[in-house]
Amino acid sequence: MSWSSSRYDPRTFKALGYHDALQRFRDSTDTPRAYLERCLEMIREREPVVKAFVALNEAGARAAADASNARWKAGRPLSPIDGMPIGIKDLLETNDMPTQMGCEAFEGNFPKRDNAAVWALRQAGAIILGKTATAELGGSHPPATTNPFDPARTAGGSSSGSAAAVAARMIPAAIGTQVGGSIIRPAAFCANVALKPTQGAINRGERQATSMSTHGVHAGAIEDMWQVAIEIAERAGGDRGCLGLFGPRQAPAAQKPSRLILLETAGWSQLDAHSKSAFGALLEGIERAGIELLRRTDNPLLEKLEGAIADAASVCNAITGWENRWYQRNLLNAHPQGVSERAKAALAKAEAMSVADYRNALFDRRAAQAAYAATAPLADAVITLSSPGPAPLWGGDAPGKPLPPRPTGDPVFNFPSSMLFAPAVTMPLMAVAGMPLGAQVMGQQHEDARITGIARWLLQNVDPVVAA
Amino acid sequence: MSWSSSRYDPRTFKALGYHDALQRFRDSTDTPRAYLERCLEMIREREPVVKAFVALNEAGARAAADASNARWKAGRPLSPIDGMPIGIKDLLETNDMPTQMGCEAFEGNFPKRDNAAVWALRQAGAIILGKTATAELGGSHPPATTNPFDPARTAGGSSSGSAAAVAARMIPAAIGTQVGGSIIRPAAFCANVALKPTQGAINRGERQATSMSTHGVHAGAIEDMWQVAIEIAERAGGDRGCLGLFGPRQAPAAQKPSRLILLETAGWSQLDAHSKSAFGALLEGIERAGIELLRRTDNPLLEKLEGAIADAASVCNAITGWENRWYQRNLLNAHPQGVSERAKAALAKAEAMSVADYRNALFDRRAAQAAYAATAPLADAVITLSSPGPAPLWGGDAPGKPLPPRPTGDPVFNFPSSMLFAPAVTMPLMAVAGMPLGAQVMGQQHEDARITGIARWLLQNVDPVVAA
Repeated sequence: MSWSSSRYDPRTFKALGYHDALQRFRDSTDTPRAYLERCLEMIREREPVVKAFVALNEAGARAAADASNARWKAGRPLSPIDGMPIGIKDLLETNDMPTQMGCEAFEGNFPKRDNAAVWALRQAGAIILGKTATAELGGSHPPATTNPFDPARTAGGSSSGSAAAVAARMIPAAIGTQVGGSIIRPAAFCANVALKPTQGAINRGERQATSMSTHGVHAGAIEDMWQVAIEIAERAGGDRGCLGLFGPRQAPAAQKPSRLILLETAGWSQLDAHSKSAFGALLEGIERAGIELLRRTDNPLLEKLEGAIADAASVCNAITGWENRWYQRNLLNAHPQGVSERAKAALAKAEAMSVADYRNALFDRRAAQAAYAATAPLADAVITLSSPGPAPLWGGDAPGKPLPPRPTGDPVFNFPSSMLFAPAVTMPLMAVAGMPLGAQVMGQQHEDARITGIARWLLQNVDPVVAA
Repeated sequence: MSWSSSRYDPRTFKALGYHDALQRFRDSTDTPRAYLERCLEMIREREPVVKAFVALNEAGARAAADASNARWKAGRPLSPIDGMPIGIKDLLETNDMPTQMGCEAFEGNFPKRDNAAVWALRQAGAIILGKTATAELGGSHPPATTNPFDPARTAGGSSSGSAAAVAARMIPAAIGTQVGGSIIRPAAFCANVALKPTQGAINRGERQATSMSTHGVHAGAIEDMWQVAIEIAERAGGDRGCLGLFGPRQAPAAQKPSRLILLETAGWSQLDAHSKSAFGALLEGIERAGIELLRRTDNPLLEKLEGAIADAASVCNAITGWENRWYQRNLLNAHPQGVSERAKAALAKAEAMSVADYRNALFDRRAAQAAYAATAPLADAVITLSSPGPAPLWGGDAPGKPLPPRPTGDPVFNFPSSMLFAPAVTMPLMAVAGMPLGAQVMGQQHEDARITGIARWLLQNVDPVVAA
């Protein structure tokens, strides 16, 4: 079987689950160690092309799996993710693997410390199997990772390796991070489910530098997605000053919404015809299921909201650019050759900003959040696409040519949830041209559990769409 | 002259200023290099007893001073603090000196990176002369620093070295940090003026881990205090997501308030008789100057506010303990012998907390902030003591004895401004038993410039008090 020619079909593709193995661990017909060995086998098979990982700790993982075996055997697992092999985006520090951030300047960087989320995962018994490839510093300069459904295409980014490793069934879940669109977009390109939580809901540990980044979870199954998130949040809490993730200790039950807001965003005008038609068919299915859809012309508050997020990309880029500029200028001064031209161009933009420009962008963000909050009573949640189309082709930069601006795809559908601090769950419900296309449910702040329940219902009850 | 027997008198003590040297730099009757050499001379004289610094970069400072000389000579200084020798609390990273945080576990730690504030100071031409001693990790376990007015007494903490270096006229200004009471208290024990700004007003750079810590400024003169703060904020902004420091590009003019709220806080019952009487005399002087004082019985909103902050110490300690626990547990696991017993005890308390306990403390803090905001229309600002008395005696821990809980003094008067995210300026307006005692002006969030103007007026117009 040649993976490189595999075509994605949401009706038949079966991602790797962990929650469905627990009963077998309990009755000893399977063990975490055996589960891990299957993951390692899949990594050996697919990693040469997919390139999802930048580091693996096989010995450490085997030792951790054996310890988990013993806990399951004794009937005392630390949590429902005890023994789960998990990938950690290589922006987060880990005490047993380097943290190189996809950036030459961090080659060999090895702080020997666990990020808060990694620390919490270990407390819960999860197995930190490897570091997953990231676009440079979480930006747009891509790693070597390829899309598991077509190696000629990007896996998305910046959580490229996390999305790809889950898609390739190497691991059941991985940690990603999002500032603009770095969880939801790669997850959608790779047919993951994924949670980009409410801003601040999961403790970012040492990564607190920006006001609109979150840790989130890529998974094959929505049950595992939630379980990983809640196990972290119950142990390490949210970011400093934040209330943290609210919700049940196990995945919220499927919950049928009565009404969903269709958010167009600035991405609507960029949709290719096939993706637009696939999403249209998905929305018809949702309406057939008896769920009402509110469109932007149905209520002036929605028109206001669309207006408030129309410029989301530039607001997000201004805020994050300013917040990173001190750090990136220091880095660039120390390692003039260790940072990509893409990162240098972003820094140059940020260095042209003043405090007043930054404050202005913060106020735009607050205004958009107010407009979003005003729509809360109108519906149970928001639905929109996770990207303006399936993963684009990507063959690397051409020497001497201008740098393509978005090698990991366009985050235009992702800036809104980031800017609104809103939780979002992407669902692999469509295929276009044999590649995954995702739709996302967004909630108000702290409605992570609600949208997870709604996404679970939609995944179970709405027919996936396969378009040409 | 024996420094160890010096007695502090606010009427005669003259702290080191920088703003008053600028005209001499302009007309070349003085130079930044000569200024630096005077600082180094004072350091040589007093450092053996005061122990304010844990690292000095004399060669780097001289080179920076020479560069500043050239800029002043050319009439092109980078800012009004171009050439100012400044001390950096050893919690903040500096690219040319180690960052050891008063903690054995960080011995030799040398990240070769500038904290955002340090970076901004260098952009403004300031001279990063040395790292100042800090209580371990900014907590309560004290460094070797002694009080410049009596070596048998603490300089306060955790910004011990910053406060002491300014008091000893070694430098005109230093950066401190405050979570509970780590700027205002040592500054008051050492007769500094100091600004603990609005939460988030000055970019903490890599030190974003807790929700109620700030960078602030210790100085000999209020003009320099403001100038250092605004030069940082204009270049590096505030913390991520925060509006940053508001105010003029040079120190706000002295501004007479018409009415001040006297805040008692939980510290009122702990005042020693001499300090209470000194503060009483200061308040009489303020009233004589024609300023009305509102006391807690004058308005039910003040009684409500006092109630909302009565438990400030435990709310602050709970919030900060929780926010540090992941980090400190990692540190302790990696360096079981590298952390003090005091820090271990604080961690044990934090590890007994749940997410729900943390959320509860956050809500207490929000309620207190609401009670504080409600008092805004009543007066121009708040006045209270900066500590429950002058710097206590401190001779070090006695082997085998229980650890005294507050070797750097009691932060009971400092928790309120931290918890309320309120700006505070301490003023060296009193002496008790030959030691400095400070009073602080507090404002509403973002009123840093207003309270600086009020403090400036009080410093110029109210007679200092000298009590037995």
